[in-house]
Amino acid sequence: MAELEIGIGKSARRGWSLDEVSIVPSRRTRDPEQVDLSWEIDAFRFELPFMSAASDSVTSPATAIAMGGLGGVGVLNLEGLWTRYEDPGPCFERIASLDDDEVAAAFVEIYAEPIKPELVVARIAEINAAGIVSCAAVSPQRTEMLAPYVTEAELDLLVIQGTVVSAEHVSRGGEPLNLKQFIREFDTPVIVGGCASYQAALHLMRTGAAGILVGVGPGQTSTTSRVLGVGVPQATAIADARSARMRHLDETGVYAHVIAAGGMLTGGDIAKAVVCGADAVMLGAPLAAASDAPGRGWHWGMSAAHATLPRGARVPVPSLGTFAEIVTGPARDHHGRVNLAGALGTSMAACGYESVKDFQKADLVVAGSDAGAGTDDRLGLL
Amino acid sequence: MAELEIGIGKSARRGWSLDEVSIVPSRRTRDPEQVDLSWEIDAFRFELPFMSAASDSVTSPATAIAMGGLGGVGVLNLEGLWTRYEDPGPCFERIASLDDDEVAAAFVEIYAEPIKPELVVARIAEINAAGIVSCAAVSPQRTEMLAPYVTEAELDLLVIQGTVVSAEHVSRGGEPLNLKQFIREFDTPVIVGGCASYQAALHLMRTGAAGILVGVGPGQTSTTSRVLGVGVPQATAIADARSARMRHLDETGVYAHVIAAGGMLTGGDIAKAVVCGADAVMLGAPLAAASDAPGRGWHWGMSAAHATLPRGARVPVPSLGTFAEIVTGPARDHHGRVNLAGALGTSMAACGYESVKDFQKADLVVAGSDAGAGTDDRLGLL
Amino acid sequence: MAELEIGIGKSARRGWSLDEVSIVPSRRTRDPEQVDLSWEIDAFRFELPFMSAASDSVTSPATAIAMGGLGGVGVLNLEGLWTRYEDPGPCFERIASLDDDEVAAAFVEIYAEPIKPELVVARIAEINAAGIVSCAAVSPQRTEMLAPYVTEAELDLLVIQGTVVSAEHVSRGGEPLNLKQFIREFDTPVIVGGCASYQAALHLMRTGAAGILVGVGPGQTSTTSRVLGVGVPQATAIADARSARMRHLDETGVYAHVIAAGGMLTGGDIAKAVVCGADAVMLGAPLAAASDAPGRGWHWGMSAAHATLPRGARVPVPSLGTFAEIVTGPARDHHGRVNLAGALGTSMAACGYESVKDFQKADLVVAGSDAGAGTDDRLGLL
Amino acid sequence: MAELEIGIGKSARRGWSLDEVSIVPSRRTRDPEQVDLSWEIDAFRFELPFMSAASDSVTSPATAIAMGGLGGVGVLNLEGLWTRYEDPGPCFERIASLDDDEVAAAFVEIYAEPIKPELVVARIAEINAAGIVSCAAVSPQRTEMLAPYVTEAELDLLVIQGTVVSAEHVSRGGEPLNLKQFIREFDTPVIVGGCASYQAALHLMRTGAAGILVGVGPGQTSTTSRVLGVGVPQATAIADARSARMRHLDETGVYAHVIAAGGMLTGGDIAKAVVCGADAVMLGAPLAAASDAPGRGWHWGMSAAHATLPRGARVPVPSLGTFAEIVTGPARDHHGRVNLAGALGTSMAACGYESVKDFQKADLVVAGSDAGAGTDDRLGLL
Repeated sequence: MAELEIGIGKSARRGWSLDEVSIVPSRRTRDPEQVDLSWEIDAFRFELPFMSAASDSVTSPATAIAMGGLGGVGVLNLEGLWTRYEDPGPCFERIASLDDDEVAAAFVEIYAEPIKPELVVARIAEINAAGIVSCAAVSPQRTEMLAPYVTEAELDLLVIQGTVVSAEHVSRGGEPLNLKQFIREFDTPVIVGGCASYQAALHLMRTGAAGILVGVGPGQTSTTSRVLGVGVPQATAIADARSARMRHLDETGVYAHVIAAGGMLTGGDIAKAVVCGADAVMLGAPLAAASDAPGRGWHWGMSAAHATLPRGARVPVPSLGTFAEIVTGPARDHHGRVNLAGALGTSMAACGYESVKDFQKADLVVAGSDAGAGTDDRLGLL
Repeated sequence: MAELEIGIGKSARRGWSLDEVSIVPSRRTRDPEQVDLSWEIDAFRFELPFMSAASDSVTSPATAIAMGGLGGVGVLNLEGLWTRYEDPGPCFERIASLDDDEVAAAFVEIYAEPIKPELVVARIAEINAAGIVSCAAVSPQRTEMLAPYVTEAELDLLVIQGTVVSAEHVSRGGEPLNLKQFIREFDTPVIVGGCASYQAALHLMRTGAAGILVGVGPGQTSTTSRVLGVGVPQATAIADARSARMRHLDETGVYAHVIAAGGMLTGGDIAKAVVCGADAVMLGAPLAAASDAPGRGWHWGMSAAHATLPRGARVPVPSLGTFAEIVTGPARDHHGRVNLAGALGTSMAACGYESVKDFQKADLVVAGSDAGAGTDDRLGLL
Repeated sequence: MAELEIGIGKSARRGWSLDEVSIVPSRRTRDPEQVDLSWEIDAFRFELPFMSAASDSVTSPATAIAMGGLGGVGVLNLEGLWTRYEDPGPCFERIASLDDDEVAAAFVEIYAEPIKPELVVARIAEINAAGIVSCAAVSPQRTEMLAPYVTEAELDLLVIQGTVVSAEHVSRGGEPLNLKQFIREFDTPVIVGGCASYQAALHLMRTGAAGILVGVGPGQTSTTSRVLGVGVPQATAIADARSARMRHLDETGVYAHVIAAGGMLTGGDIAKAVVCGADAVMLGAPLAAASDAPGRGWHWGMSAAHATLPRGARVPVPSLGTFAEIVTGPARDHHGRVNLAGALGTSMAACGYESVKDFQKADLVVAGSDAGAGTDDRLGLL
Repeated sequence: MAELEIGIGKSARRGWSLDEVSIVPSRRTRDPEQVDLSWEIDAFRFELPFMSAASDSVTSPATAIAMGGLGGVGVLNLEGLWTRYEDPGPCFERIASLDDDEVAAAFVEIYAEPIKPELVVARIAEINAAGIVSCAAVSPQRTEMLAPYVTEAELDLLVIQGTVVSAEHVSRGGEPLNLKQFIREFDTPVIVGGCASYQAALHLMRTGAAGILVGVGPGQTSTTSRVLGVGVPQATAIADARSARMRHLDETGVYAHVIAAGGMLTGGDIAKAVVCGADAVMLGAPLAAASDAPGRGWHWGMSAAHATLPRGARVPVPSLGTFAEIVTGPARDHHGRVNLAGALGTSMAACGYESVKDFQKADLVVAGSDAGAGTDDRLGLL
């Protein structure tokens, strides 16, 4: 692995963002109808390798059901507004009407409302009642506390998610969550993350997780990089996780899924994430732009509600179409943010690949700063 | 070939755009009058190595004839407005007057009008009647359907063009176009593309094509990179095709021409494309800026009319002069977008090269982000 | 060490700025309460590894005392307004009300007032009276002249600071300051800088300094790079100094502290400086943004007052909170410029490190131009 | 020499611009008064290594005399307005009042006025009468024609200058200028350029030139890169010429001076050019910003007057001070564009070098895109 010398005796790898890479067409092509976008994890099969992010602005019980109907899977945040409020509608209204300088204080206040176990059970039940795969997220800190309700509600897939989640957490107060033990004893399959390195990914896989979320700080609302200085460009993080998946498979015979979480806006970004090694993608900002997303024109993550060190913003998102249009089209413009499934399929077809797994073998090229710029501003120059 | 490691076990080449390279003067110079810009492909000789793009906004029968008169060759799109409408004038008027948010829907509607075989024949005949080399483009999907009319009309040069065209296309519905067989049996010489890798270029050459179009997504109207994540920076794509040309020549004795298509705006861009290895260039946006171009101040490609996943925009272009002025000058400003033939010739002269083929040997330098910036914005700083 | 060839026979290293690097999470995490930010230099122990810059806009006797109370250390400039004026208040008022085009002339005039030895003594005494560690800065040119008053006032820590300070200064008029001799004979421990290379750092360490300031031109008010062409990107400068520290320790058994000075704005920047090798950081612009900083919304360095070649600007700074809030929080927004101690601690926790010294071992990744960009502007694109 | 592969079988060097490099302080410093900026070429000694560019907007007989008085040397263009018009004042007035869209046509018209041999002689005589070293420029095309008048007027130093000048020019009409023969037979020492590669520089040195101008297209008014695609980043061009100078010295014992021409705006740029290997610099845009420069707030080069392919613009320049202030100060702001001699001297002092020749040995570092950015825009961010 090539190392760059930052100074004498201190080196670093070059990490690559999805923006910096581009997919190279092969010498084959195929019809866009001739591709298979399906994804299987544990006992579940999805028509699309798309998860909706566990952000209140993206996934409600309603959009989780919509996502399931479109072939993907929605991930409800069990520590968000839906489990804190019987009717979170007024909270969404308030958030949408806040001035920028009111946001931080209001978030702290709104998210101070305690989580209600009965709402945890009820929200999961609502999704299960729609006959789709139910999936929801908890933080490592609250996993032990919420696990019994998750089990009671018969959730299909549990996501344990934080900014950085490791298999070895050091905690002063009491015993921290032992992920390996928890996953082994818990009946529901678990997806866990985020992580952003080969070692971290490998150790998360060794906890027995069905899949891992890859990405620390790449999301559109995240300011982790600015606030903490921590982060790994997403193309590199995904490719490293892919390599950990290969080693884990070799060591255990178990295929742990790599789910790219954050840092993707367009169909092209999703296609690149797959080519880097992702089995599926978790989408936040792209889906927050749905006219029927809960965020009402705004997108935010859970870290935006931190009381003393917020690491995420409430950001405005344009309304680009319905949830269904954004996922499966048709697109009415050429910016690549609508018809994400169509874009992924067309990308695979243009490069001659039949399945998502196959597409992971495609070649990448690193391009300069203009890569992915789309329509060139130079054109208007006189 | 140097590979960059994107992540552990996943590598990529660095690709270079034309913006990133610059031509190094040699230790010789010559008078600008002392250079030869001519280009020969199959039985045809052109004074200039310029093709006009098969975009409705660029090439009409009239501008194809103008292009021929200036020494280049115009490529009429046989699936564009001129073969769908007896009088496409109202369509051009409508397109020029659309609001941005009406464009996508209007394009779908306008381009839904069926192609008329009699118009295919008539448009080609109109160009032939001008006594110049006639050239026109079809998509791989419609090549078999339109071929008889192309033959009937006695077209001189056929271009088979798509976003990505490969020698091995997989299609569910019926047999896909077998390029090799088609070209062998077809009387008219064929140019085919786009492609963007050594392997793809080599396999297209092996179909027997007289030339190949190089470029996936570099054009000014293209959003292929954003929508699909697919694309190769143009300097690298051209240089790889040049290498495929050398191998194909060595294997077969046949010189397949490399035509850079897209990604060039100025005379400097064209000169760089030649130094990278292009025998000729296909120009879209540069010619759409002609006051007498059909697009009436707008430029668009065929993919802008896609019904569910548009990958191209209608973009405004400034009016920089007549078609003749843009191609052969004189230039009235210093931006390098007028007098493209003069610029190519002066570039060759400043570097001491006599012919276009010779100029392919010139040295390149990779420059940082300021390369090609022209007048420096820093100047105005206090 | 990899060298880049600028031209034939002239090479250069690639230097890296803090913006270009990012910290890679390890496979461990810990609770943010489980980290230790303390810093010890010579006989002094600080709860936080933060020094306030010796800029009049940042450090007054009052903010020096505040900084001490928060756990860091304030550095008063003994050649600034507080030792030239009995009551510098009107100067601060005047500077805050200057039009941009009046600044240079006014600075020359304001800083022409002679330094008063009795004020030097009085200001240090005022800080000492608060029961905290006192620290103040002088330039190499005035070190000999001011040293007796520093001693008389019983200063705890002396900083000898200039744009570039070397252990070997050539001077025509009289003997230049012999740093080695001065430090050996002077009772107060000395911190000296700036420097920006391995050799310069090593030679400064060999003068017997307790610590060195690393950074030439990285500060927010500095235009050294534009005016003189001189400067080293800060991540590289710090890492090189870290290497010099290791050699100096090996040769002498003495641990000379590396203090990153300038070029940091956010908690993320501070965390990266530590990972590059800094034992502590000197903060200017981040603290000038305190509502109770002396600069009243403006920040400037001493070089802004140079009579014939100013190399620094008076720059506006937003008011982000009180001095205490900026240092220890709570933050009310997500930009990473408030609660710098909390951010450093959370960064260490997210990466699994317990002490500042430990955190120097963390891994870095070099990211492209988007690294650290925080909320992505692409999000708003339609 | 490291080569980058543009495509298979086509490689390029990485070239570096002055913006991309920065000077590394050494472990020594010295007083700014302790440096020597003098420059000797042929029999002439100058206090400053500065030439004013042969642009009508920069050098008039009056500013040439001023430049000489300040210790540098002014280069009058013998094919500019001063030798075409007895009183060029109205032309300057007209140029300053032109609308942007009138510039190209007006330039063609104004510069169509024939060159008057008697004015060539008179202008040189005017400069000689001031008792300073006289220097003037001609193009290779007109060198033979103007040489007798140059000799008659007893010019001290002749500059033969074009966009690209080579030692081997191929011309159809008549014999081209044989530089080697011309220089051998001509009594006045000759400086010749521009060039931008090792080979070109070496061959120009072998013509017997006392110095060569290095730079193809880096100037502030130049659009050579955009129009022709030709150019080499200036730091690399200078360093290569430095290497050619060493070989030429080794082969012949003759030291041919390397004069960086174009691409410098600030004192920092000049210092970097010297460290790359320049013995002196030719300044256009920096001096056009003098309140008493002939251009009256505008700057343009000769190529702006080309009839069919202009490659330079008329660009506005801010008024930064008098000619004398820009060259020798004092500076009233911190942008580095005033007091260029003071900046070069201070840069040398900060890095511990005594003479310009010595400063060529200083170390460079390649910095990312932020290098030289001066005051950071991030500061204003909330």
